[in-house]
Amino acid sequence: MDREALTQTNPRKEAGKPTEKLRHVIESQQFTVPMLMELFDRSRGMERLVARGGSLEYQNRIMATLFYTPSTRTRLSFEAAMHRLGGRVISTEHARAFSSEIEGEDVEDTIKIIGSYSDVIVIRHHEEGGAKRAAHASSVPVINAGDGEGGQHPTQALLDLYTIYRERPLDGLSVAIIGALDKGRTARSLAYLLAKFERVKIFFVSPPEQQMKQDILDYLNEHAVLYEMESDIDRVIGEVDVVYQTRIRPHPHLESASVHQFAIHSATLPKMKPDALILHPLPRTVELDRSVDQDPRALYFRQAMNGLFVRMALLTMLLEKD
Amino acid sequence: MDREALTQTNPRKEAGKPTEKLRHVIESQQFTVPMLMELFDRSRGMERLVARGGSLEYQNRIMATLFYTPSTRTRLSFEAAMHRLGGRVISTEHARAFSSEIEGEDVEDTIKIIGSYSDVIVIRHHEEGGAKRAAHASSVPVINAGDGEGGQHPTQALLDLYTIYRERPLDGLSVAIIGALDKGRTARSLAYLLAKFERVKIFFVSPPEQQMKQDILDYLNEHAVLYEMESDIDRVIGEVDVVYQTRIRPHPHLESASVHQFAIHSATLPKMKPDALILHPLPRTVELDRSVDQDPRALYFRQAMNGLFVRMALLTMLLEKD
Amino acid sequence: MDREALTQTNPRKEAGKPTEKLRHVIESQQFTVPMLMELFDRSRGMERLVARGGSLEYQNRIMATLFYTPSTRTRLSFEAAMHRLGGRVISTEHARAFSSEIEGEDVEDTIKIIGSYSDVIVIRHHEEGGAKRAAHASSVPVINAGDGEGGQHPTQALLDLYTIYRERPLDGLSVAIIGALDKGRTARSLAYLLAKFERVKIFFVSPPEQQMKQDILDYLNEHAVLYEMESDIDRVIGEVDVVYQTRIRPHPHLESASVHQFAIHSATLPKMKPDALILHPLPRTVELDRSVDQDPRALYFRQAMNGLFVRMALLTMLLEKD
Repeated sequence: MDREALTQTNPRKEAGKPTEKLRHVIESQQFTVPMLMELFDRSRGMERLVARGGSLEYQNRIMATLFYTPSTRTRLSFEAAMHRLGGRVISTEHARAFSSEIEGEDVEDTIKIIGSYSDVIVIRHHEEGGAKRAAHASSVPVINAGDGEGGQHPTQALLDLYTIYRERPLDGLSVAIIGALDKGRTARSLAYLLAKFERVKIFFVSPPEQQMKQDILDYLNEHAVLYEMESDIDRVIGEVDVVYQTRIRPHPHLESASVHQFAIHSATLPKMKPDALILHPLPRTVELDRSVDQDPRALYFRQAMNGLFVRMALLTMLLEKD
Repeated sequence: MDREALTQTNPRKEAGKPTEKLRHVIESQQFTVPMLMELFDRSRGMERLVARGGSLEYQNRIMATLFYTPSTRTRLSFEAAMHRLGGRVISTEHARAFSSEIEGEDVEDTIKIIGSYSDVIVIRHHEEGGAKRAAHASSVPVINAGDGEGGQHPTQALLDLYTIYRERPLDGLSVAIIGALDKGRTARSLAYLLAKFERVKIFFVSPPEQQMKQDILDYLNEHAVLYEMESDIDRVIGEVDVVYQTRIRPHPHLESASVHQFAIHSATLPKMKPDALILHPLPRTVELDRSVDQDPRALYFRQAMNGLFVRMALLTMLLEKD
Repeated sequence: MDREALTQTNPRKEAGKPTEKLRHVIESQQFTVPMLMELFDRSRGMERLVARGGSLEYQNRIMATLFYTPSTRTRLSFEAAMHRLGGRVISTEHARAFSSEIEGEDVEDTIKIIGSYSDVIVIRHHEEGGAKRAAHASSVPVINAGDGEGGQHPTQALLDLYTIYRERPLDGLSVAIIGALDKGRTARSLAYLLAKFERVKIFFVSPPEQQMKQDILDYLNEHAVLYEMESDIDRVIGEVDVVYQTRIRPHPHLESASVHQFAIHSATLPKMKPDALILHPLPRTVELDRSVDQDPRALYFRQAMNGLFVRMALLTMLLEKD
């Protein structure tokens, strides 16, 4: 799906304002920097709205959360976002297991029907490309809440970036992305988004067998983004503005002692910059020790909460009348 | 359950207006023609309400959707209908699998308890007659959203009929009902409803092994409705006002080539009347080819959307104060 | 968790009013008699509110129902309570089966994240102590909707007690608690609550192999509550103000004929006091015959409905601004 299919020009908007209306949210690369800035401005507004206990005029709008595979946290975050806007929600937790009717039919037919009941659809699909197919068939906006193992989860990347944006200028940022990066959906999506900013440097820290895949490296090369591949966390941890920790996967060639090499724990903290940011998409296992939680640089629970504001902001952008 | 148990006389209504209030929705035959006309009038009103983004004063009314077996589309259609009215929803997707407490107890006890939390109950039960038993025990209105294999799914039949009514006079209609009709719940329910109108003619088109069962034929005979049994779609398709396509079931005596004989595809379209209506309860498999979707006579997605309006209208009839 | 962790002193409240604000609802013993009286007063108010179809100003408050194991009735009762207050609900029916992300992580992390989306969390956890751990981690109030086999289900005990309170003075009450009491979570929780009142006498009626456990008996001894252990229902049934029937469990040493000895059926009714109250937490099996339902002393469906009012009242106490 090219960028034109995901946005539409809006001739009524005045010069100087963004000329594109967001139509669907399918992959993180679709966002331009002006769109990201509009999203982040709105997200700040949502923080203020929630803080004062307000809501918007969405009481007659319905969001459908159509999860073919379950993801309780992501689903509840979207649903809370719609409720905080004053809207309404219809939902399925696990369409694939529950519904032979839905399992047996093309996602296109399902989307056309659910779209006739609702004003926006949040879909998590088990097949890579499932959200894109849904968007093509849909008469209402579609948000990708994760499609397949190797697919995207763009709202996670947007909330990750918003969390950094709230604390630091994005241009000139240095970021360590740590974990099993070959299958790291959130790591991949974040790399796409970071590439949109100036003078960013990314360190991919991973066991060599689990390093970031070539397609992302090609993308960064095309966009002239500096990156390094690293397998020793200690050679990076003191230099970066952002430590983005993700899951570490047990590996036949990787002893469990080695897993611990890539973990963040209390002994790692003194090595970091005093104003570094520690992020993690959660849930975590051993790669992020609870002893880190009390450190003021630990932002991962704030990051989860920011998902609410970013999803509220996205919904307003999608549901806005042209 | 006789008709008196499903309605109640309302002495306060003036002469000339319907004298019955709808109490439960259990089977399609329970509806009289005046009740159907009231329902369809209200459904038109709901179309207009939704088009202008309005809602009604149902903000303190709760609908419980109690699905012992899952049916995501039907459930979401009911839930969207209640939300579009301004109401509230509590829901279980799959009570039978989830809830040993509910599985182990009589539906009567469950309904009494859920009915003390809610204002109307939508039930899908795995046993034929489950909805009727629920209605007997309930202090609040019950809507049957499908009970058992051989049971009913009356709101599907009502939305099917409403879709035809929006396009054609129902008296004098000729309808081809195609598919595996022996186990076709929607085909059976539609036949009951069509029998209420004048000069209707029904063609049951099916492999002989899967033809409509004798109980429906007896019902049509009693009500002096003309019908024919047919196994060659081509002898019927050019004559009828409505092509109601349903699932075709693989059968030991039916080769897969034969399944295709009963399908609607692009080659079928030129044989139909120029103003025919093509309906299908969806989901579909091979019996309705995607090449048909662009034909202006293809109404099945509209039909699915009409479910929203008919269910909204039914809810207003059930929730109305006496 | 000691009582201080579950409440907080509120210096702004005037003298004569309760000086504690309810923070979490974890176990029935946490409630003092003044708190119970405040809860029951509010519950009466909720009955009146529902009767006149009103709601309160909770339209911007979100309750999360986080059920690791399913309990459809309890969940729907809580959700209806929040809706009747005018509030909003996000929900998972079966987090343990659905969500590998949630299953794999500490309940503490999950609660922190869900708590950043919502204003109150209702949790049912499969491990004893799960709700207490959740409350420790949570920034928003937590309500225990059942934790583990041997854990608590305090709102059930509160609604049980409220049902008695609506009919009788609690001081001086005599109660027969019948069933498989060794694993009877509701029986245990009710015993804790009854012990808070004056001159209460409890008869534990059970096969000797399934009698109430020593920890509860010790608690009653400490609080100077009279109790007797009994295995013959007939020696008790005529004396008590309240018959609290619970499940009877088949047992290797207990013939099915014996199960019937502990059941309440039409032949039991003449033996009871004319103004006795018959309660049961439901669902029931053979231990409470349907022939009892028409008896005016049968209060168990009323008891289930009271759950709505008590849960509404609890939510108002937890969501109230300090």
